Amino acid sequence: MSERYDIAIVGSGPAGITAAINARIRNKKIIVFGYENLSNKLYLAPKIDNYVGFYGISGKELTKKFKEHLDEMNIDITYERVDNIYAMGDYYALMISDKTYEATSLILATGVQFGKPFKGESEFLGRGVGYCATCDAPLYKNKVVTIIGYNNESIEEANYVSELASKVYFIPMFKGEYDLNSNIEIINDKPVEIIGDSMVKKIILRNSELESDGVFILRDSISPDQLVPGLLVEDGHIKVNRDMETNLKGCYAAGDSTGKPYQYLKAMGEGQVAALNAVSYIDKKC
Amino acid sequence: MSERYDIAIVGSGPAGITAAINARIRNKKIIVFGYENLSNKLYLAPKIDNYVGFYGISGKELTKKFKEHLDEMNIDITYERVDNIYAMGDYYALMISDKTYEATSLILATGVQFGKPFKGESEFLGRGVGYCATCDAPLYKNKVVTIIGYNNESIEEANYVSELASKVYFIPMFKGEYDLNSNIEIINDKPVEIIGDSMVKKIILRNSELESDGVFILRDSISPDQLVPGLLVEDGHIKVNRDMETNLKGCYAAGDSTGKPYQYLKAMGEGQVAALNAVSYIDKKC
Ligand SMILES: Cc1cc2nc3c(=O)[nH]c(=O)nc-3n(C[C@H](O)[C@H](O)[C@H](O)COP(=O)(O)OP(=O)(O)OC[C@H]3O[C@@H](n4cnc5c(N)ncnc54)[C@H](O)[C@@H]3O)c2cc1C
Ligand SMILES: Cc1cc2nc3c(=O)[nH]c(=O)nc-3n(C[C@H](O)[C@H](O)[C@H](O)COP(=O)(O)OP(=O)(O)OC[C@H]3O[C@@H](n4cnc5c(N)ncnc54)[C@H](O)[C@@H]3O)c2cc1C
Repeated sequence: MSERYDIAIVGSGPAGITAAINARIRNKKIIVFGYENLSNKLYLAPKIDNYVGFYGISGKELTKKFKEHLDEMNIDITYERVDNIYAMGDYYALMISDKTYEATSLILATGVQFGKPFKGESEFLGRGVGYCATCDAPLYKNKVVTIIGYNNESIEEANYVSELASKVYFIPMFKGEYDLNSNIEIINDKPVEIIGDSMVKKIILRNSELESDGVFILRDSISPDQLVPGLLVEDGHIKVNRDMETNLKGCYAAGDSTGKPYQYLKAMGEGQVAALNAVSYIDKKC
Repeated sequence: MSERYDIAIVGSGPAGITAAINARIRNKKIIVFGYENLSNKLYLAPKIDNYVGFYGISGKELTKKFKEHLDEMNIDITYERVDNIYAMGDYYALMISDKTYEATSLILATGVQFGKPFKGESEFLGRGVGYCATCDAPLYKNKVVTIIGYNNESIEEANYVSELASKVYFIPMFKGEYDLNSNIEIINDKPVEIIGDSMVKKIILRNSELESDGVFILRDSISPDQLVPGLLVEDGHIKVNRDMETNLKGCYAAGDSTGKPYQYLKAMGEGQVAALNAVSYIDKKC
């Protein structure tokens, strides 16, 4: 049996790290999933005037301050992307590639993803369109798969799929080096639409078309109800009350993922409230 | 006619200054009421571990950082205590001793006051019990008035009342020098209960009693619905929704005054949300 955490925090942006700091102060056993830079929306901000106490600071400098704070408190970030989370009644099961983590309560601090879904994406979701290649790869044994990749993790996923699929196309949506298996074909074109009948048939790109049985769209974040089946989402945001409770017992949310305004202090205040309420939830359970 | 501000912010604690900073970034004409130390709950905190970016900082140091931020943005605090605020339909009128300020929208960031009301206090409110001596003094011409004072402002108020009343007792609830007019009698005893029939008759202290026609209780903060008549308060906190709107149009609230947890980042996130929503309220009006 895997060890059980008190609180799993998904996302290492301003909301997630504030939740982590407050949960740690209350001596809870936490695990935080995220990235080395914490959040690109923080790291890449050119000049921040409204984080009180640091007028005019750059995102890079503020990230450094935040990381120092985490270091002082010995809070580690687990550099992994959570693919799926299931409410198991008494706890949550977090799926990461081939691993499972367990936690009594959950704080979603995943931010928002900009950009609209592709035409056909929602329509074919579960019918050839997926967001976790490693989870669903077995379905595509000896089939043709296209991967629309937004980050380095998508490279790993593509390589994994290429061991099973008969053919893998990789459409890179980011700049960088693509360390892909040699049997993967890189397509430098812009996806426009996904079409099919009962199942996905092909992907229309600006200058070409790709026949494909499956399409994985591997963005930095997926919509929260895809991440946590059963989670109530309203107008694209996780529905919460003033205590940052979602519709799922023991599951809290904070930050951009819960709605506008998209701002650091709003995200952090919510991260704090989510953490303190998760703490009382756990304390009441024990 | 007095000049009309876009947003009046009442309180200079973490919630109020965050609201001020965000409203100023949006180029609104603001006025912020508060104290030189910003907030005693911040200034006097021995060690703060959960203000992200400043692990283990003292309240005094963090106050200094916050003041530097305000200075960089040329945000001044008006060192005055708002006595009463009236919703005038199209704007709010803020009463301060003999002055009136006008603002199109209002952000209440007054914090919470610790300690329970005195026995009889709520019962006789408006029937001899008051919270603003300078406002109501004329009612007590040639009468006996007791002032229960928690701060230096209460000294000034007592002096003012002593010019009209036949007799003024001053019960100091704080340590310090009491620069009171010579005709004011200082009573060093602890108030226990206020009694009367249709109107206040006397104040029972631990070791004595004072016959009195009026009692002014001058705390650092008064309850929000005393400050703003008509404001909806639930369990002692201002009722707000996730947009920090109160039941009064154009009136927002943030920080401890809206409920637990009582924490800096929660207060500041709310101050930010209140400010941004007040800004859209004003923009829609114009
Ligand atoms: C260029 C820019 C400038 C900005 N400037 C300002 C400013 O000056 N002031 C201001 O107040 N706001 C500013 N913002 C807005 C601010 O960045 C956001 O409001 C804030 O970052 C939201 O914090 P968050 O923690 O909710 O989400 P995010 O910062 O988006 O963090 C979420 C994190 O969770 C990770 N994540 C998501 N899903 C998963 C998963 N399944 N597994 C693991 N990790 C996951 C993401 O990769 C990300 O690292 C700016 C934004 C941008 C883009
Ligand atoms: C000793 C101590 C230590 C603390 N340590 C921590 C900590 O480590 N971490 C943490 O997160 N929280 C801590 N807190 C809690 C934190 O101080 C509060 O949550 C926070 O100050 C709330 O901010 P606020 O702006 O809502 O209210 P306040 O900070 O209370 O500010 C309100 C301000 O408004 C002023 N005001 C009220 N009425 C009026 C009026 N009518 N006219 C003009 N001005 C008015 C008040 O005088 C005050 O200056 C601590 C509190 C105390 C007392």
